[in-house]
Amino acid sequence: MKLPESTEWALHCTTALAQLGGEPVSTSQLAEHFGLPVPYLAKQLAHLVKAGVLSGTTGPRGGFRLALPATRITVLDIVEAIDGRGDPYQCREIRQQGRGAVPAADCLEPCVLATTMRAAHEAWRASLAAVTVAELVGTLPPEIPQRTRRLLSRGGGE
Amino acid sequence: MKLPESTEWALHCTTALAQLGGEPVSTSQLAEHFGLPVPYLAKQLAHLVKAGVLSGTTGPRGGFRLALPATRITVLDIVEAIDGRGDPYQCREIRQQGRGAVPAADCLEPCVLATTMRAAHEAWRASLAAVTVAELVGTLPPEIPQRTRRLLSRGGGE
Ligand code: FES
Ligand code: FES
Repeated sequence: MKLPESTEWALHCTTALAQLGGEPVSTSQLAEHFGLPVPYLAKQLAHLVKAGVLSGTTGPRGGFRLALPATRITVLDIVEAIDGRGDPYQCREIRQQGRGAVPAADCLEPCVLATTMRAAHEAWRASLAAVTVAELVGTLPPEIPQRTRRLLSRGGGE
Repeated sequence: MKLPESTEWALHCTTALAQLGGEPVSTSQLAEHFGLPVPYLAKQLAHLVKAGVLSGTTGPRGGFRLALPATRITVLDIVEAIDGRGDPYQCREIRQQGRGAVPAADCLEPCVLATTMRAAHEAWRASLAAVTVAELVGTLPPEIPQRTRRLLSRGGGE
């Protein structure tokens, strides 16, 4: 079970944008800031826009900013924007297969294995949904947001 | 994020063995019972033996049985026997990369993103560790274990 490597990119980019005053930051600025490849980062930012985490504007002064206040974006929103909302466990109804097959009429409810695995996935989701981007930023020592603003803000953070 | 399809096989096989009185069941019996391919199922059963969930004996009357009482085997034990114990999220220290790189001396502690993702993985693990194989069997209607014994026990469950 693996999350895509770009999950980390999305978390860092969103957390960085939350440290700015809302001015847009371009893909190439973010790529340079984190040492990431532009074309593939652009795809990940597009996933974040599609999921309603970021909003993007085009043009010479365009770029990405948070689509919502940082208090309303959770880590789960970011992770699911990249990896989707699927359950990592899939019940393929083995109970209805082979010599031990249970009749279909007795399989109208989800099986206990799928239910158990689903509950664990929901516990994982709840844990990530409980942490907002604002809270992540709040854990950083104050010099980090100052530095992020200095490096990423087109006005130099002034 | 996906768990291997064989996770389901391992869960069904272990739960079936927990319904028997401890007599060994062969790979081909289990494969036939669940309609699964013998060679690949054999590999998964070997993972379960290695993880201490099942024990295997060889010879004409040999096969697999639980290595521990069903009250002491959790769903997490089975899932991690197949998929390993790795965290699906990996922190690749992006904070130390690119123009925005934070000095290594300020990165001695795990970052807040890795800590947050780790906590969610531990919530998932705790949820699966809270359910034993005995509890799974306990949710089945009584005719299912009777049927499993009749079909899988070499004595026909008598
Ligand atoms: S029947 Fe196999 S997990 Fe649902
Ligand atoms: S530095 Fe990126 S998740 Fe730890």
